[in-house]
Amino acid sequence: MNDNQRHAEKKAKIKAARDRMMAEKTDEKGLVIVHTGAGKGKSSSGFGMILRCIAHGMPCAVVQFIKGAWDTGERRLLTSHFGDLCQFHAMGEGFTWETQDRDRDIAAARAGWAKAKELIRDPAIRMVLLDEINIALRYEYLDLDEVLAFLRDEKPAMTHVVLTGRNARPDLIEAADLVTEMAAVKHPFRAGIKAQPGVEF
Amino acid sequence: MNDNQRHAEKKAKIKAARDRMMAEKTDEKGLVIVHTGAGKGKSSSGFGMILRCIAHGMPCAVVQFIKGAWDTGERRLLTSHFGDLCQFHAMGEGFTWETQDRDRDIAAARAGWAKAKELIRDPAIRMVLLDEINIALRYEYLDLDEVLAFLRDEKPAMTHVVLTGRNARPDLIEAADLVTEMAAVKHPFRAGIKAQPGVEF
Repeated sequence: MNDNQRHAEKKAKIKAARDRMMAEKTDEKGLVIVHTGAGKGKSSSGFGMILRCIAHGMPCAVVQFIKGAWDTGERRLLTSHFGDLCQFHAMGEGFTWETQDRDRDIAAARAGWAKAKELIRDPAIRMVLLDEINIALRYEYLDLDEVLAFLRDEKPAMTHVVLTGRNARPDLIEAADLVTEMAAVKHPFRAGIKAQPGVEF
Repeated sequence: MNDNQRHAEKKAKIKAARDRMMAEKTDEKGLVIVHTGAGKGKSSSGFGMILRCIAHGMPCAVVQFIKGAWDTGERRLLTSHFGDLCQFHAMGEGFTWETQDRDRDIAAARAGWAKAKELIRDPAIRMVLLDEINIALRYEYLDLDEVLAFLRDEKPAMTHVVLTGRNARPDLIEAADLVTEMAAVKHPFRAGIKAQPGVEF
């Protein structure tokens, strides 16, 4: 038996095992998805999933809880090209370290959550991305128990909700179906490289 | 001093420290970016960065090394709407466990790498996403030393190259500027939920 035959045999076994595994997974349901961790990619993979929904013709929505001064590119692009499929709502006033008014931050977070509930309740909307909501939950600008109760009791069964931001609260991780931690292995800020278009914003 | 004043003072200090930190970061350079780990979001955050480039009007390109049967949505969307800014090349034959022909997999990976070099050498292209190339490197379908030497010696200084896929080789992590590990904290496949549009594809 040559190398290529051995390889073919091994791969055939892996494929058979994988086909068996995937055949057992038959359920569909709307997922509560969390992207957390100190690394990059929490928001951008959320936007990547929104892109996938758009590609499938699935109506979707984004609520941005913490609006950075530099974070408007995706919004402009999504609304100008796909405004019929994807709603975009920027509720925050800037990164939390940019504002010095806690009351205003709380009001912005609560307005964002009110909009989020309205979007999630609409069963026509198949995915709602709550970008950086974990920051608002961490600072207790929003009540975690209320958010968890809403996701459990009022989210339509087939709707996906994606919650991003570092320091996700443990009870949210416990309640979620799919949790990914983006861990920073290496970051160029440490080497004096500034934030650059396409990468950070 | 009330709660809001204390909050404002604390936030002003954080903002000042952050402004000082960011002022020290003045360099721009093309980055070698790696997304690895067993969790979700490696490819979707790569596509999210491509979306950011498009939003900034930066020409970019995607080479997909491992073509899944179900992974065509983003490609269709990107090429139909943004084909003038983003080139898309799907070189793989399917996930590696789907094919049983090692020679064909190697030929596909090498064709992908030849296309990748051509795209990276073009200084007009600002970001090249090499999606799932880590799989081809892990199976040694591509020569790691050749890839690293090319990125070091021939990549234009301002071009970003994003390499995704689990099991990134240690020497690639060592050579990269920005590395994120997507760790799977919780995955719904384990609960019998199948891959769903918008989330997995």
